[in-house]
Amino acid sequence: MTVSSVGVTASASPSSELADLAARFRAVREQTERLAAPLSAEDQVVQSMPDVSPTKWHRAHTTWFFEEFVLSSAVPDYVRVNPSYRYLFNSYYEAVGARQPRPRRGMITRPSVGEVSEYRRQVDAAMDALFDSFGQHSVDLAAGGADLTESSRWASIAPLIELGTHHEQQHQELLLMDIKHVLFQNPLLPTYEAAPLASVPPTNAAAPLTFTQHDGGLVEIGHDGDGFSYDNEGPRHKVWLEPFALANRLVTCGEWLEFMNADGYSRHENWLSDGWATVQQEGWDAPLYWDRRDGEWFVFTLNGQQRVDPSAPVVNVSYYEADAYARWAGHRLPREQEWEAVAAAFPVEATFALQPRAATGSGMTQLYGEVWQWTSSAYSAYPGFSAAEGAVGEYNGKFMVDQQVLRGSASITADDHARLTYRNFFPSSSRWAFSGVRLASDA
Amino acid sequence: MTVSSVGVTASASPSSELADLAARFRAVREQTERLAAPLSAEDQVVQSMPDVSPTKWHRAHTTWFFEEFVLSSAVPDYVRVNPSYRYLFNSYYEAVGARQPRPRRGMITRPSVGEVSEYRRQVDAAMDALFDSFGQHSVDLAAGGADLTESSRWASIAPLIELGTHHEQQHQELLLMDIKHVLFQNPLLPTYEAAPLASVPPTNAAAPLTFTQHDGGLVEIGHDGDGFSYDNEGPRHKVWLEPFALANRLVTCGEWLEFMNADGYSRHENWLSDGWATVQQEGWDAPLYWDRRDGEWFVFTLNGQQRVDPSAPVVNVSYYEADAYARWAGHRLPREQEWEAVAAAFPVEATFALQPRAATGSGMTQLYGEVWQWTSSAYSAYPGFSAAEGAVGEYNGKFMVDQQVLRGSASITADDHARLTYRNFFPSSSRWAFSGVRLASDA
Amino acid sequence: MTVSSVGVTASASPSSELADLAARFRAVREQTERLAAPLSAEDQVVQSMPDVSPTKWHRAHTTWFFEEFVLSSAVPDYVRVNPSYRYLFNSYYEAVGARQPRPRRGMITRPSVGEVSEYRRQVDAAMDALFDSFGQHSVDLAAGGADLTESSRWASIAPLIELGTHHEQQHQELLLMDIKHVLFQNPLLPTYEAAPLASVPPTNAAAPLTFTQHDGGLVEIGHDGDGFSYDNEGPRHKVWLEPFALANRLVTCGEWLEFMNADGYSRHENWLSDGWATVQQEGWDAPLYWDRRDGEWFVFTLNGQQRVDPSAPVVNVSYYEADAYARWAGHRLPREQEWEAVAAAFPVEATFALQPRAATGSGMTQLYGEVWQWTSSAYSAYPGFSAAEGAVGEYNGKFMVDQQVLRGSASITADDHARLTYRNFFPSSSRWAFSGVRLASDA
Amino acid sequence: MTVSSVGVTASASPSSELADLAARFRAVREQTERLAAPLSAEDQVVQSMPDVSPTKWHRAHTTWFFEEFVLSSAVPDYVRVNPSYRYLFNSYYEAVGARQPRPRRGMITRPSVGEVSEYRRQVDAAMDALFDSFGQHSVDLAAGGADLTESSRWASIAPLIELGTHHEQQHQELLLMDIKHVLFQNPLLPTYEAAPLASVPPTNAAAPLTFTQHDGGLVEIGHDGDGFSYDNEGPRHKVWLEPFALANRLVTCGEWLEFMNADGYSRHENWLSDGWATVQQEGWDAPLYWDRRDGEWFVFTLNGQQRVDPSAPVVNVSYYEADAYARWAGHRLPREQEWEAVAAAFPVEATFALQPRAATGSGMTQLYGEVWQWTSSAYSAYPGFSAAEGAVGEYNGKFMVDQQVLRGSASITADDHARLTYRNFFPSSSRWAFSGVRLASDA
Repeated sequence: MTVSSVGVTASASPSSELADLAARFRAVREQTERLAAPLSAEDQVVQSMPDVSPTKWHRAHTTWFFEEFVLSSAVPDYVRVNPSYRYLFNSYYEAVGARQPRPRRGMITRPSVGEVSEYRRQVDAAMDALFDSFGQHSVDLAAGGADLTESSRWASIAPLIELGTHHEQQHQELLLMDIKHVLFQNPLLPTYEAAPLASVPPTNAAAPLTFTQHDGGLVEIGHDGDGFSYDNEGPRHKVWLEPFALANRLVTCGEWLEFMNADGYSRHENWLSDGWATVQQEGWDAPLYWDRRDGEWFVFTLNGQQRVDPSAPVVNVSYYEADAYARWAGHRLPREQEWEAVAAAFPVEATFALQPRAATGSGMTQLYGEVWQWTSSAYSAYPGFSAAEGAVGEYNGKFMVDQQVLRGSASITADDHARLTYRNFFPSSSRWAFSGVRLASDA
Repeated sequence: MTVSSVGVTASASPSSELADLAARFRAVREQTERLAAPLSAEDQVVQSMPDVSPTKWHRAHTTWFFEEFVLSSAVPDYVRVNPSYRYLFNSYYEAVGARQPRPRRGMITRPSVGEVSEYRRQVDAAMDALFDSFGQHSVDLAAGGADLTESSRWASIAPLIELGTHHEQQHQELLLMDIKHVLFQNPLLPTYEAAPLASVPPTNAAAPLTFTQHDGGLVEIGHDGDGFSYDNEGPRHKVWLEPFALANRLVTCGEWLEFMNADGYSRHENWLSDGWATVQQEGWDAPLYWDRRDGEWFVFTLNGQQRVDPSAPVVNVSYYEADAYARWAGHRLPREQEWEAVAAAFPVEATFALQPRAATGSGMTQLYGEVWQWTSSAYSAYPGFSAAEGAVGEYNGKFMVDQQVLRGSASITADDHARLTYRNFFPSSSRWAFSGVRLASDA
Repeated sequence: MTVSSVGVTASASPSSELADLAARFRAVREQTERLAAPLSAEDQVVQSMPDVSPTKWHRAHTTWFFEEFVLSSAVPDYVRVNPSYRYLFNSYYEAVGARQPRPRRGMITRPSVGEVSEYRRQVDAAMDALFDSFGQHSVDLAAGGADLTESSRWASIAPLIELGTHHEQQHQELLLMDIKHVLFQNPLLPTYEAAPLASVPPTNAAAPLTFTQHDGGLVEIGHDGDGFSYDNEGPRHKVWLEPFALANRLVTCGEWLEFMNADGYSRHENWLSDGWATVQQEGWDAPLYWDRRDGEWFVFTLNGQQRVDPSAPVVNVSYYEADAYARWAGHRLPREQEWEAVAAAFPVEATFALQPRAATGSGMTQLYGEVWQWTSSAYSAYPGFSAAEGAVGEYNGKFMVDQQVLRGSASITADDHARLTYRNFFPSSSRWAFSGVRLASDA
Repeated sequence: MTVSSVGVTASASPSSELADLAARFRAVREQTERLAAPLSAEDQVVQSMPDVSPTKWHRAHTTWFFEEFVLSSAVPDYVRVNPSYRYLFNSYYEAVGARQPRPRRGMITRPSVGEVSEYRRQVDAAMDALFDSFGQHSVDLAAGGADLTESSRWASIAPLIELGTHHEQQHQELLLMDIKHVLFQNPLLPTYEAAPLASVPPTNAAAPLTFTQHDGGLVEIGHDGDGFSYDNEGPRHKVWLEPFALANRLVTCGEWLEFMNADGYSRHENWLSDGWATVQQEGWDAPLYWDRRDGEWFVFTLNGQQRVDPSAPVVNVSYYEADAYARWAGHRLPREQEWEAVAAAFPVEATFALQPRAATGSGMTQLYGEVWQWTSSAYSAYPGFSAAEGAVGEYNGKFMVDQQVLRGSASITADDHARLTYRNFFPSSSRWAFSGVRLASDA
C-alpha cells in the first residue's frame, strides 16, 4: 500500500519522529495485551464463525506483521521466532505465500496463549533493538548529514512501522467485535468485562432528530497527504454533490423498536431484494444480539446481557437493515462523500468504551466514537488510485467489490485511530461489526 | 417505476401515437414467438440453473405483464385467461403476491407450450381490443376535446404498455442467454439455429487497440426525459470526471488467449480477493462456454460449438475476469459515467446477431450491438432517484446493491432496445450474460 | 449378475421358450409405451429431484439395456442407433464407461420424445430380427442336435433378454413413482390420468387388525433357482427365527391419522435418532403428498388430489416413519425373513392400479399389489452371495449398504413382476416409492 | 437401558460388591483425568468437526452422567453443582431436555478447564458420600436383614453407577480419538504424548495370513446375563451360520499399501456404490491421517507423525474402505455372529497403547486391543430386544439404523472395557475411530 507520508514527519525533527514512533509502537502493543487480559486461554482460541478470528490469532498476526514487513527486511540476518508462524499467522497476503485457511484459524490449539505472549515479547524486543539502532544515528539523521544510508533506510522502514501500528489498532477493534461474537455463542452469556454499565445512569431521552442542510456543489474529498492514512483514502479529488441534508445524530434503539413494532422486518416494500431474501432465510426480526424475554427486549454486550436502552444508538445492524430502516423512515442513507463533506467541519473526537452511548449535546453529534455509519456508497477506488507493488499492496485494494463503505468510528475503535477520510467496509449482510445508522435525505 | 414519458409522445399526434404503440406492441410480441420457434417443447421447459428461466416461462411471463399491469386495470370486468397464471408467471413482484419460486420455474410441465401459445394469443387479442377501444376515440384524443376521461385513461395506460414492450425485449435477450445455457448442459452440444456462422469468413485481424482521451470536468449524465427510459436511468445529473481515456474497441478473444497463456487465471495478483476465491472454487481457466480439445480452444454458441475466433470480442466473462484482465493489461475498466460521457457523441447503432462480431472500421466502435461492457461502477441510485409506488416500482430499484453496471448492448439485444443511458446490471460472478470488456485508463 | 435360470426353461421346449420370451419382450415393451402415453413432451423431460428420472430417460434407458447387453454382443456388426446414447442413457454401470450424471438427466432436452420413440422402434426391430434368427434354428435347438453353436448362443443370450424385461418392469414402476413426484411440484396439481378413482365407492372400514402367529425355528429363505429371480434373492439358505406374529393387513390411513393426532411426529420417544433429526430438519408432519386444507387431509395421487381415505393403506412413508409408527403402536416392523416365512404359504396375487386399495376379505391379505412393506432388515448379501463378473454384476450387489429391505409389491408394480423372494430396497429417508407398513411383534 | 446385572454381583458379598464398585468408580474417574493431563486448556476446548467433542466436554459430560442418573435420584435434596451444566453437558438424551447442539460443543469457552476440574471434584465427593452412606449399612446389606429399604435402594442405584463407569470408559476412548483429530488439524502436527514409539523396534514381518475354518450350524450369540453388558448385546439367541473361515490376524499397513499400489482407490469394481461416490467426493486415496512426503507414506498418530510401519494393523479406515479392500483381496468382511462364534473360544486380552501394534504369536491373534474390526452386519436389534423406559433407554437403541457393527476393541480402549459380545457401531463413512479390518471368507 501507498502510505503517503508518516504522520509525524511534518512538524518534527527526525529524532523526535523516531521517539514518537517508538512510543506509539509501544503504546499500541501494550493496548492489545490489555484488551486480551480479561480472556482465558479457552476464550482466546475459539472461532465462532469464518469471519471471526480467535483472540490468540489477532495477537499473533499483528506481531507477524512486524516480523514480515519490518524485521525481515530491516534487520540483517533476522531469525524468525518460529518459521511455522509465517504460515499460521499470515492473514490474506497471497504474495507472502500459503497460509492457514481463514475458517480454520480456530483449529490451532498450539502454539498456546503463553507461547503467543512469548512471541510478542521477542518481536517487541527485536523492534526495540531496531529503534535503538536508529537512535544511535539520530544526530546524523537530524543533520541530514553524513549517514545518508541510515537516513534512507529509516525513510523506507518508518512508514511500514507506522502502518503496522494502525493495522494493529484495526485488529484491536476486530478482537473486541470477535470476542463478543464468541461469548454470545455460549448459552451462559458470559461477560468480557464485568464492570456494570448499569452504573452509568440510563439516559432517558436522545436529542430530537434534526437535519443539517448542505448546498452541495463541487467539493474535495479524500486524504490530502498530511499525516497517516490508508491508501484507499486517496487521492484527494473533486466530486459534485446535489444539495442534501444529514441527520444530527445516530438512529437510536428506541427508534429501531418503532420500526420493529411497525412490522419493519416483515414488510417487503422496505427492503432491497437481496435484503428481503436474507431476512427470510436468516429469520431476522431484530438486530444481532437482541433477544426478547418475557415481552421485553434485551441486548448482549461486552458487559453481558442488558435491557435495551432506547436512547442508545442501535448497533450490529447490517447494510440491508440500515437501508430498510431509512426507507421506512422516509429518508435514505448518506453517500460517503456527503458524510465527509459535512464532517470536514468538525474535529475528530472520541472516547473509548465497550458500548456506544446516547447522544448528548446539540448540533452535529456522534460522528465518531459510537458506531460506524453505513453509507449507500459501494466500496470502490477513488479516481487515480492504484495499489502499491508487493504484499502490502494487498491491504485494501483487492477488496473493492461487493462491500459497502462505513464512515466515522466506533466506541471500540482506538481513540487515535479515527480519521475524517477513513473508509471502513463490510459486506451488506454483515452484522457483527459495530455498525449503525445515520440518516440523510435529499434537500 | 417512473416512466418519464412515452417515447412517441413528443413528435406525434395522439392518434399516430396510438397507432405507433400498437404497432410496436405487435412487432415485439411477434419477435418473441420468432425467437422461440426453433425450440421444441422439451427445450422450452427445462431450467438449467436458478438464474435461468425456461423459454416457455419467458413467453408466459411477458404475457402476464400485460395482463397484470394493463388489462386488469384498463379493461372493465377483464377475466384472466387462467387465474393460476398470476401465481405461476409472476417473477419477483412482491406486491402482486406469492409466486412460483424462481429456482423451480423448470418444474412447471403444464400448462404446455401449446397452452402458453394460446395464452399469448388470447392476451394479444385482448390488447388488440383495447387498442381498438381507444382508436374509436382518437379524434377526441387528438382534439383534446370532449372525451377527457378517455384521454386521461390513455395517458395512464400507454406508459405501461410501452414499458411492457421494453420489458419483453429484455426477456427476448434473456431467452437467448438462457437457452444457450440450457443447450450447453447437453453433452451433444445441440444448436439453437443451425445456420452456420462459418459462412461468415473469419476475420483475421481486429483493428489496433487505441485510446480516446477525454478531458473530464463537469458533465451531465442520465436520461433527459425525452423518449422512453427505465426509472434507474434518471434523474439526469452532474458528475465531475477526472481526465481519462477509453479504448476504441472491445477486448478480443485473441487478446484473452494471451491473458490465459500468461497464466492470467492462476496469478493472484491480477484478481480481486472475491474473484480469486471464485476462480479457485469454480476451477475457472477460460470464459464460460470455452472448451479445449486437442490443444485447441472451442466455444459453444447459439450456432453450436465453433473454433475460437481471435478477432471476435470475448463474451461470457464475469466482472471478476473483466477486472483481472484489465489489471493484467495495465489498464482498468471504465466507470459508467466515463462510458456515457464518451458514447454521448455517437449514435446508437446495432444489428441483431446470435454472436458478437469483430470490430470493423476505425474510430470508436462496438459501443452497441456486440457485448455488454462491464464497468467498475456498482449499481446504485442516481441522486434524486426514487422508485415509483406499487408493484412496477419493484422493477429496478430493489436490486441496487452488490451488482455491477454494464453499458452498451449485445448482439442479441433487440435493435431498438439499446439506449445511451441504459444501465444493465449483473452480480460480479455472473457469466451467462453476453458480457465483455472495454478498457479504460487514467489519462 | 447371476440369473439362476430363465424362468421359462423348466417346463417348456426350446422353441416354445423362444416364443414365450419373445412374447414377454413385446408385451413389456408395449406396456412401457402405454404408461408414457398420457404424458406430454414437457412432462417427459423434467427431473424433479436427483432421485427422480425423466419419463423419456426411462424409456431410453430400458432400450439402451437391450442394445448394450444383448444386441451389441449377440448381433454381429450391430450398429448402435446413436453412439452418444451409450453415454446419455447408461444409468450406473461403471464398467460400461462414463455417463450423464444422475442429477442432470433432466438437462437432456434432446433427443426429443419423438426421437426416443424412434430409438425404441429401431431396437425393437433389431430384437425382432434376433428372435427370428433363433426361430429358424428352433428345430435344432429342440433336438439339442447339430447346431450346438446356436444352442449355446441362445443359452447365453436368453437370460439377458429375460433380465432386460424384468429390468424394464422395474423402470415402469419407477416411471410412475417419478412422474407422480414431477407432477406434484406443479402448484396446479395436474393428474397423470384423469379417470376418477372416486368412482370406486370409498370403503368405510378396513378389516380388523389381527396377528398371525408363527412358531419360528429353522426355516429356508431365498430363491430356489426355479424360474427367474435377481441375483440378490439367493442363494437359498437356512435362518433361525424366534417365534413371532405378523399382521393380517397393512396399516391404514385412518390408523396413521390416529398417530398424527397423538402427536406422533412431535414426540421424540417414537423415533430413531436419525429419524428424529430428519423429521425436524424436513418439517415432516404427515406422509409425503399429504396436505391439510381447511382442517381436512388430502393426498396427491396419480389421479390428482383426493380426500384421504381412512381405510386405504398408508403409502409414501419413509422407513423412519414406518419404524416410529410401529413403536408408537406397541409393535415393530417385521424382519424380511419373517415376512417371507409367512408369505411362503400364500400365492402371489396382484392387480395393477394407480393407487393402493383397502383390504377386502379375511385372513392374511395385501401381501402383494398394494404397497411395498418396510422391513427392519438392512439390505445385505445372503450367505454365499457373490456378484457376477462384468457390468451386469453391478445390478444389485453394489448397493448393499445403508438401505432397508422392502417386501411384497405395490399397486403400480407390473402384475407378473412380483415374487415371494423379491427384495426391494431404499434408503431410510426415502418417501417417493409406494412404500407402506405391515406390523409384526414378538410372539 | 436394561443392565442385565451388575458385573460384580455374582461372586461377591454385598459389602465387597460395594467396595468393588466404589473402587472401580474411582479408578475410572482417575484414568479420565490422566488422559486429559497432557492437554492444554486450548487443546481441551476446540472441536474439529461435528462428530468430535472437546476434551473438556468429555470430562464434564461423564460427570454430568452421574449427577443426572445417580445423584439427582439417589441423594435427597441433592443440589447440582451448576444448573446450567444440565443443558451444556447433556449429550443426546431427549428425555432430559434441551441441550447444547452437538456441532456447537466447541463454542463453550466457559466454564473453563479449571472449573470443569472443580466440577469433577465436587461430583466425586458427592459420590464418595453416597458410597459411604451405603457402607454404613453394609452389614445389613450382607445379611439381607432389617434394612430392606437400603438394600433395594442400592439395587436400583448400583447398576446405574456401573453403567456410568462403562459410559466413562467409552468416552475415554472417544477423548483419544477426538484429540487425535483435533491435533491433526494443526499444520504443526503436534503430539499428544511425545514419548517416541520409535523406541519400539519396528517389526519387520507380520505373521502369515491364514484362515481358521468354522463349521457353522446353530450357535448362540449375545450376552448371557452374567456380568455387565450394554442392553444392545442381548438377549442371547440362536443363529444359523453357514460354514466360513476367519483370518488369524488383522490386515496390515503393508497389505494396505499393496491395495493402494494396485490402484485400489481408483478402480470402481472394488467399491460399493456409496463408497465409490464418497471416494470421489472426498478425494480419498489412503487411510485418514496418512500423508505422502517425498514418495514415502507417513501416518499421524497420538505420538506425532511417523513412517508407516508395514507390519502394524491398518487403522482409521471406513467401512467402505474395509469392504473394498476385502473384495479386492478376494475375501469378504465377517458377519458379527461369525466373529463372535470364533472369538468365544478365546479370552479377552488387551493392553492399552496409543497405537495398534503388529501381531505377534501364532494362532488367532489381535481379537482385542488393537483396532475395532468392521463387520458386514448392519447394527440392528437382536430378537426380543427392547429399550428400557426413560432417558437411559436412549443409550443404544435409537441408533439402530444406517450403522455398521464393529467387534473386538482397540489399543485405546480401557483394558477392562472390552467384551466378547460388545457391539460398537459407526456410519459407513466414518474414519476417525480406531477401526480396521479382519478378513473372512465362505468356507
